[in-house]
Amino acid sequence: MSPHIEDRQAARSTPRVVVAPDSFKGSAPAADVAQFLADGVLRARPDAEVVRLPMADGGEGTLDALAAAWGVEKRRAKTVDALGRPTTARWATSADGRLAVVELAEASGLPGVADVLPQPLLATTFGTGLVLREALDSGAEEILVCLGGSATTDGGSGILRALGVRPLGEDGEPVADGGEGLAHVARLDLGGLHPKARAVRWRLAVDVTNPLVGERGAARVFGPQKGAGDVDVDYLDAGLERWAGVLAGATGVDVREVAGAGAAGGVAGGLHAVLGAELEPGAALVADAVGLADAVAGASLVLTGEGSFDSQSVAGKVADTVAATAARAPARPPVVVVAGQVLLPPARAAEAGVAAAFALAAGPATLAELVTHTPTLLADVAENVTRLVLR
Amino acid sequence: MSPHIEDRQAARSTPRVVVAPDSFKGSAPAADVAQFLADGVLRARPDAEVVRLPMADGGEGTLDALAAAWGVEKRRAKTVDALGRPTTARWATSADGRLAVVELAEASGLPGVADVLPQPLLATTFGTGLVLREALDSGAEEILVCLGGSATTDGGSGILRALGVRPLGEDGEPVADGGEGLAHVARLDLGGLHPKARAVRWRLAVDVTNPLVGERGAARVFGPQKGAGDVDVDYLDAGLERWAGVLAGATGVDVREVAGAGAAGGVAGGLHAVLGAELEPGAALVADAVGLADAVAGASLVLTGEGSFDSQSVAGKVADTVAATAARAPARPPVVVVAGQVLLPPARAAEAGVAAAFALAAGPATLAELVTHTPTLLADVAENVTRLVLR
Repeated sequence: MSPHIEDRQAARSTPRVVVAPDSFKGSAPAADVAQFLADGVLRARPDAEVVRLPMADGGEGTLDALAAAWGVEKRRAKTVDALGRPTTARWATSADGRLAVVELAEASGLPGVADVLPQPLLATTFGTGLVLREALDSGAEEILVCLGGSATTDGGSGILRALGVRPLGEDGEPVADGGEGLAHVARLDLGGLHPKARAVRWRLAVDVTNPLVGERGAARVFGPQKGAGDVDVDYLDAGLERWAGVLAGATGVDVREVAGAGAAGGVAGGLHAVLGAELEPGAALVADAVGLADAVAGASLVLTGEGSFDSQSVAGKVADTVAATAARAPARPPVVVVAGQVLLPPARAAEAGVAAAFALAAGPATLAELVTHTPTLLADVAENVTRLVLR
Repeated sequence: MSPHIEDRQAARSTPRVVVAPDSFKGSAPAADVAQFLADGVLRARPDAEVVRLPMADGGEGTLDALAAAWGVEKRRAKTVDALGRPTTARWATSADGRLAVVELAEASGLPGVADVLPQPLLATTFGTGLVLREALDSGAEEILVCLGGSATTDGGSGILRALGVRPLGEDGEPVADGGEGLAHVARLDLGGLHPKARAVRWRLAVDVTNPLVGERGAARVFGPQKGAGDVDVDYLDAGLERWAGVLAGATGVDVREVAGAGAAGGVAGGLHAVLGAELEPGAALVADAVGLADAVAGASLVLTGEGSFDSQSVAGKVADTVAATAARAPARPPVVVVAGQVLLPPARAAEAGVAAAFALAAGPATLAELVTHTPTLLADVAENVTRLVLR
């Protein structure tokens, strides 16, 4: 038997299936979804090589997705929450330690301060800065910061303070932390910036395009969710405007026109100006980080999924990113979406590179029933699709 | 370019898809289901050759399925209903006129006599006999009689009378028509039988296996649905027992041990004994009649479907028959089931030759919502499957 024939037989007998779903919001984290889908694939083809790459769009779940894809344990840093109270925050590094991922919501998220009355002016990202300092000290060469779910509107000033930057007032004294202090900031002292902070590559996963200030800015759009009343919103928006001017003066970078700078209460703006952090669509960033392109290159089938497959899904979210990545693979493996609900017409899915989208339901069912039976239903659909594609 | 290459290119550019669903009971007749599925296939592949073969399992809808598959208009015969009142009944012949199909429920069904109190002892299949006489006179060489939904428990004596057979009493006079007369029947006069009745091939589509008499017999199991009380049931069962003895005496065929002889109030028993009619599982019979095997021979994909895909489905029903037929085709095209609800695990479907089964629902939905949106949902699933299989 020639090596060529052997190769072909091996390829036929061990198909690779990539399973790269988003989480099903309110139902199952991405790692679980990937597991259930993999279960179904293996029931159909016990001989398949199933590559599980739980995905995320940069928001909640991104840390879990990356840690699962890398097969690493999450670390836990001692830090403070958005109101300065002691807490811990999970973060992770890739197996080789070169890439660190930090989710802002871990230390500075709304859930962590849900036990007290909202303090929209005082809330600070300082705690996330402490985690980032630990990441810098770990030797990471690249740091992903996942923005979303913050309790703060401080323009990232808290993070920068934790990294050694000093926002000063007209009197040369440090201003107060939180959005409160931005109204009084006059200049930045960058002299104390952590020595590694300019050496690493900073990447910001954002899934909003809101600017720092104005009608669509961080304070007006997201402030009310964080407990800011009308007066607070005006105050915070004015503070962010002042902050943008100070950032521009100190760094030469004006973030007022940068789409997405308003992410996480303006953290994106602050880190873009001072650290040169790149704003990126979260799903593409995660795909890059987990090595999706390499995985799909040799695949015969790619499964992805999310709670709702709709017009949002094909605008830079996980399914769209997975489909685009598969379309660039030489063998162009078919991409199939499995979703709690499928709202996108097949033709529009096909335009985005999705061969087919199937819903979980096996018949008439309520949302609660679908949630309860998500593991079984996911596995069944994956098994059906695998039997059909890998005959 | 060689003819061989041309052939292959033609095959690639014009894939054949066979669409052979059962009806969705209470929702859509098989011809409509086939149309909706075909719509979806053609949205995915406008160049496809779609062969629509609406199927049935021998019961209600068989006449429609065959007429649709043959592309013929249904005929309409003047006849009488189960209580002897004038009515009309639809029937059909194949395009070449050789094969006729008659649904017993058309003339002798329960719906036709639902406007009056049930008369379980008087109800007769005589009206269906008149239709069969017309079919014989049309020159058909083969007659399919679809049994099911009858209002009668007359052992087929009504049909036989219409074809010229005379059930006689001890006194040599004709006995009363309906189940009533069976209690007095002593012998059969076959002398007047329609001359063509023994020349044609009679086929009976049955989807029950009940015997003529006894605990699982036609009177005890189906009599109550037709309005028979306890006394009536005993009387009818005894009549059918007597009828079986007379049939055996006149024909040499004892139908008491024939599975399915109890179909349609014993019609299967009577026609098997006197006419040599073959009892057959309906779905296989319909598949044969519509030429399913020839259609799937050159197909790249076969779609079938039914309201509920469950353990019944793979026990001789439409999906099972379609899968078995495709499995015998040299190219073994994949068979995909689309159903209102999918209850069968994928592995069991695979054992029956079904590659995948997908439910209609695109998310949480009530049965009423699924019924309302059946056309769109069927087309969407078919489009998804076609995009996936015919890439």
